[in-house]
Amino acid sequence: MSAVITLTSDFGLDDGYVAQMKGAILTVNPQATLVDVAHTVEPQNVAQAAYLIGTVHRHFPRGSVHLVVVDPGVGSQRQAAILATPGAAFVAPDNGCLSQVLEDTGAGPRDGDGRRTPGKDSAAFAITNESYFQKPVSATFHGRDIFSPVAAHLSLGRRPDEFGEPLATLQALPPDSPHRTVDGRLIGRIVHVDTFGNLISNIAADDLPADGQSLSIEIAGHTIHGLHRTYSDASGTLALVGSSGHLEIAVSNGNASDVLNATVGDAVTIREMKAEER
Amino acid sequence: MSAVITLTSDFGLDDGYVAQMKGAILTVNPQATLVDVAHTVEPQNVAQAAYLIGTVHRHFPRGSVHLVVVDPGVGSQRQAAILATPGAAFVAPDNGCLSQVLEDTGAGPRDGDGRRTPGKDSAAFAITNESYFQKPVSATFHGRDIFSPVAAHLSLGRRPDEFGEPLATLQALPPDSPHRTVDGRLIGRIVHVDTFGNLISNIAADDLPADGQSLSIEIAGHTIHGLHRTYSDASGTLALVGSSGHLEIAVSNGNASDVLNATVGDAVTIREMKAEER
Amino acid sequence: MSAVITLTSDFGLDDGYVAQMKGAILTVNPQATLVDVAHTVEPQNVAQAAYLIGTVHRHFPRGSVHLVVVDPGVGSQRQAAILATPGAAFVAPDNGCLSQVLEDTGAGPRDGDGRRTPGKDSAAFAITNESYFQKPVSATFHGRDIFSPVAAHLSLGRRPDEFGEPLATLQALPPDSPHRTVDGRLIGRIVHVDTFGNLISNIAADDLPADGQSLSIEIAGHTIHGLHRTYSDASGTLALVGSSGHLEIAVSNGNASDVLNATVGDAVTIREMKAEER
Repeated sequence: MSAVITLTSDFGLDDGYVAQMKGAILTVNPQATLVDVAHTVEPQNVAQAAYLIGTVHRHFPRGSVHLVVVDPGVGSQRQAAILATPGAAFVAPDNGCLSQVLEDTGAGPRDGDGRRTPGKDSAAFAITNESYFQKPVSATFHGRDIFSPVAAHLSLGRRPDEFGEPLATLQALPPDSPHRTVDGRLIGRIVHVDTFGNLISNIAADDLPADGQSLSIEIAGHTIHGLHRTYSDASGTLALVGSSGHLEIAVSNGNASDVLNATVGDAVTIREMKAEER
Repeated sequence: MSAVITLTSDFGLDDGYVAQMKGAILTVNPQATLVDVAHTVEPQNVAQAAYLIGTVHRHFPRGSVHLVVVDPGVGSQRQAAILATPGAAFVAPDNGCLSQVLEDTGAGPRDGDGRRTPGKDSAAFAITNESYFQKPVSATFHGRDIFSPVAAHLSLGRRPDEFGEPLATLQALPPDSPHRTVDGRLIGRIVHVDTFGNLISNIAADDLPADGQSLSIEIAGHTIHGLHRTYSDASGTLALVGSSGHLEIAVSNGNASDVLNATVGDAVTIREMKAEER
Repeated sequence: MSAVITLTSDFGLDDGYVAQMKGAILTVNPQATLVDVAHTVEPQNVAQAAYLIGTVHRHFPRGSVHLVVVDPGVGSQRQAAILATPGAAFVAPDNGCLSQVLEDTGAGPRDGDGRRTPGKDSAAFAITNESYFQKPVSATFHGRDIFSPVAAHLSLGRRPDEFGEPLATLQALPPDSPHRTVDGRLIGRIVHVDTFGNLISNIAADDLPADGQSLSIEIAGHTIHGLHRTYSDASGTLALVGSSGHLEIAVSNGNASDVLNATVGDAVTIREMKAEER
């Protein structure tokens, strides 16, 4: 059965680890279509993996399987999990890798243990049914011996509940949302710097006032006035709503991270200018 | 329908952009065979993209679709275009990305606006038919929302003229051809340094005299005598006709760019030695 | 016919060379499933290529074809070869690229010329039948013009003996095995540093005493006591049997190569501690 399986990991491009996973997948489902998201996630950076899979999952065909293996606790007591949503199945360690996907698919609030109930049309399952594993299971590479064959069996149409018991909740990283101050400013932060040096914030288009021209944006000691539509709409530093639907700071034909000396974690402060300021 | 779609971009390997394009393609044509050319083109370096796709397109099966997205003017008035040639279809912004492909497929001379008429068995079309776009169309990522679904529909057998009106010409970068001096020397330049440090020139095998042994080649203050056939035919610095059919300067089991301190743009001067010089 | 072809090379990710090989493969077998192992092998590092393909081949479906192109002698007298094993076919220059595969598939001892007879269920063949080549054959890129189309024809079910005469032996690099000292210590070395900085040795699990707790491991002036099961079983520096079945030195959530200032080639000395030492 031809089905798409995407792969996101911190395994890099220089080792055989990713190929070992793909071999394990193709051994189970030789017809799977394999798509790399990225394998250059910083080692053990679960938040970065959660961000990346969050940017791509909505763009894949219904029924795709997304494998996310950033797994510092491999071989420990952390669960292996499947999150089944209306559009896709996700296979990952239960360590926060699916935080953004949970957010995107209507998960409940984060409980005291940092866990969220999947959205009402979604469900989570533990991966415990060893009949789907590749034996022997290495204690250090569940990506190859557990996650990959499970993803392949899912792509063949196995139901998620065949792999283990339901999980009421999944681990989620602390939410990374902008907040509003008493004087009406919106304070977010840079959550990603892309290949071009564009500074991508956690401020969604919906958070912004309807009149983009009224915006004053402060970042790293710089102030930007108004929103533009594209990277080439102005010269120099500019702000726009990027392709992920979030506020981005860019430099036309340049690298904003370098030019502004700004990076992940930096605050972005938005306020509406008064008419006389514009 | 199984068809090959290649991807060339400056999106890098660390973000989700390439995967988003692939998801958009597979949503339209789940059977497409996706092949990466390279995604490490220097940001907005249209000439490098033109060079890269120029080195690969002839090696793909007839009917392949080549997607080239290096697009500094995304969202501006630059056109999105299809170039249909006897062997393939190319989908790219109309900004020079297809310069080498135009050259390779018999395009007319460059006009005063830097544009060329496609070769007599080729044709160009604007991409304007929004029914083939992925909605909503991001102003900053036409690679995902326009070029990818169009490439996928082409791979399914849609005719190029279904996507928009014919374009009489396409943008082409200034030609990068060697010239001959009055005293008979041929002056070219290095257009690419590959992974091995090989210095690849714009001088084609056909430009060289039949007797390779008669050649004197000057580059970066070094002089090389005669042509060799392979990288291991001599020790040290040597010249040969590389796998793209162009004159290359290499160092056997070494890095010519480092050894000669030479790079893209450096002049390469060829002359025929007299019998007494050899 | 849908069959898996893996690719391992030193062609890097920035050039069109890998895509040219894939185009050549798909021209012969449009249904081939292509999987990259790695293309960032250090230029001309045959030993690294041999190591990499050694780590992945057992994880692919039976009948896969593995293309390994690290080929400093391209165009010279070195043979192009096929190694057919019970599980797969390997296509590579006969220069040692298949050393680990030979070892894994029961090859005979290395003879005086550094060559080994394939295992009793394996066979090797020269690649000389030009009817399977892509013409014209570049003197400098057999990966594209010879190895790729041959791999594609193998994936279509052509018998290995259709490509050329049997080869009695294939080139193998000197074995890299640990040795035992007269006082019972086992001395191996680091053969690979992975993306995480894990130091992977040539000491197989079978070489170790049954009681992992009794081990004293010396590397780069550091001593480690006992074996752990996973990277997260202890804090700091630890030793374990990694996913390739070899002894690895790691730092929990850290980079052992950096922390211990150790790298490929460094000695690893194992001894069993006496009861009173533990």
